[in-house]
Amino acid sequence: MTSKPAASGRPVVITMGDPAGIGPEIIVRALCERPQLRNQVLVAGDLPTLRRAIDLTHAIEGMANEALVLEEVAAGAWATAPTDRLRAVQACVLSERVPFGCISARAGRAAADCIAYAANLVLHGGARAMVTAPVHKEALSAAGLAHPGHTEFLQALSAEHAGVTLAQMPVRMMLSSPGLATVLVSIHVSLREALEAVTRERVVETIRITAAHFGRCGMSNARIAVAALNPHAGEGGLFGREEIDIISPAIHHAKDMGLNVSGPHAPDTVFMRARQGEFDVVVAMYHDQGLIPVKLLGLEFGVNTTLGLPLIRTSPDHGTAFDLAGTGRASASSLLAAIDAAMRMSAGSSQ
Amino acid sequence: MTSKPAASGRPVVITMGDPAGIGPEIIVRALCERPQLRNQVLVAGDLPTLRRAIDLTHAIEGMANEALVLEEVAAGAWATAPTDRLRAVQACVLSERVPFGCISARAGRAAADCIAYAANLVLHGGARAMVTAPVHKEALSAAGLAHPGHTEFLQALSAEHAGVTLAQMPVRMMLSSPGLATVLVSIHVSLREALEAVTRERVVETIRITAAHFGRCGMSNARIAVAALNPHAGEGGLFGREEIDIISPAIHHAKDMGLNVSGPHAPDTVFMRARQGEFDVVVAMYHDQGLIPVKLLGLEFGVNTTLGLPLIRTSPDHGTAFDLAGTGRASASSLLAAIDAAMRMSAGSSQ
Repeated sequence: MTSKPAASGRPVVITMGDPAGIGPEIIVRALCERPQLRNQVLVAGDLPTLRRAIDLTHAIEGMANEALVLEEVAAGAWATAPTDRLRAVQACVLSERVPFGCISARAGRAAADCIAYAANLVLHGGARAMVTAPVHKEALSAAGLAHPGHTEFLQALSAEHAGVTLAQMPVRMMLSSPGLATVLVSIHVSLREALEAVTRERVVETIRITAAHFGRCGMSNARIAVAALNPHAGEGGLFGREEIDIISPAIHHAKDMGLNVSGPHAPDTVFMRARQGEFDVVVAMYHDQGLIPVKLLGLEFGVNTTLGLPLIRTSPDHGTAFDLAGTGRASASSLLAAIDAAMRMSAGSSQ
Repeated sequence: MTSKPAASGRPVVITMGDPAGIGPEIIVRALCERPQLRNQVLVAGDLPTLRRAIDLTHAIEGMANEALVLEEVAAGAWATAPTDRLRAVQACVLSERVPFGCISARAGRAAADCIAYAANLVLHGGARAMVTAPVHKEALSAAGLAHPGHTEFLQALSAEHAGVTLAQMPVRMMLSSPGLATVLVSIHVSLREALEAVTRERVVETIRITAAHFGRCGMSNARIAVAALNPHAGEGGLFGREEIDIISPAIHHAKDMGLNVSGPHAPDTVFMRARQGEFDVVVAMYHDQGLIPVKLLGLEFGVNTTLGLPLIRTSPDHGTAFDLAGTGRASASSLLAAIDAAMRMSAGSSQ
């Protein structure tokens, strides 16, 4: 049992992302396109940067309706602030607004501070889930952050909060587009290194983390398909032995744990089968195996979810788009899909 | 200049495939669903087996229209035989009909003989292109065929015809579905071996063969996109160096040959971009990289084309489906797509 308020009484917190990127303006756009969301979210950001995004969006859109009103709140006062406004908390220090489209340590530091703020808010029960607008890896690095991106940073914050080591809190990336979801055994490594990452332990861990996520979202018997590594699932060892030596034993192990898992399935048809409704999610053996089909089905509605954390975190499946920042032309569709996913995932959650 | 008759005056020859599989019945079904095709094709097969397929299809379909009529022809007499019938040549020896769904040396031998017959017909100018119904690898092997499948067998027949070695006639597999075509640097090897097959020579060769194919089909300036091997195209060497050391130099080399080629593109978005119309074809670095997106877009209309041969050969993108053979339930859609592709590719060809 938890003493936290029900999920519906707590906001989904959205981080601003790199203030030089499209994050602030797509947040504003999302809340203009779907006003009913204002009642559900808190933005962790820099107030002047958010105000610039509102002015920009209003000027460019030439909207008939009124400009979105920014309301600074303390996190604890979110529920009592006006629900038709963009409720935001000043979650970072930014002495002046940064120019659009430029990598800077200041912007990276502000983005990192917002992430830390939002994560801690969720970890302490002040928000039900977090959605992160895009950050720039080079800006984070320039700010001296030891973590290359959101995932690693959130893993570190969560492990610290839970009092465990990083190794004790393995995470996985899930990418989804309408009709297809995939969880990756490995992500940002070369394909050669990805082959080495296909171990029995990692595959079992990925299945376990996937099942735990779906269970938390109310799908305790989610049908998990495991993709093979080799063409035609190796054709009985003819095109590689990983299926026989590693993946099948991992699947048996997961079945012994009571999980609803099948495979290894031929990679070139498993995603098609999942899309047709045969499976709820596909465990992919490497980055592109999973991302090629998901992105093909609709980059504009792609959602990235970090699994394995003690918090729900989704994000749009795109970057800071420095070339678009400040133009007001960036689409909010992927961010909206990420907010929807976070709300759905946290609907029945105590987190 | 060629002394061969114009393409339109010569048939597309269709091989029966393994007589125990769905090949014969999907050929019959294709010619029932699209009667106007009868005027364009010659079937190389076993007459009693084709008759069984006609009886089966007619009985199961309970078609209001009359049963397709089988007309045995000599290949040279095709043009003068009735154009509303299934014109077939007895291209193999099969002492009795084989049972459905069983692997046998007899069936494998008959299938192989039909392939050889059809290939030689095309190579000698008696047909404009060939479409192959599925064969069973184990049946071919049981028949003592030294080649594991169509591609290798056709390569050997073509090389012999041209008086060159196999090495002098490199072939590549192209898979296409509506809106997306991909040519593979390697096919039926483990992913580990596929990594080793990504050499500068093989990538250049694949681009060259791809360009030659599109050129023969009247697209001499086809936009060829080359996929990277590693996630995010390696991010400047961070996730693997193959893009820098192998693929980019190969692309430069192909550009120097005057080819309209670009890349290496991030694998997880290049197929989406091709589908959106930015490229005509994607050169994929390994089997599943190309086949996952193509199959996701529509297995039922998938077409396999062998590039690099001195003949045009397409096939449906499925196997013998022994479990369906004899039921009359197999779909002819992929075979129809393969016939359409063969006709389109050979429309302006002298081959």
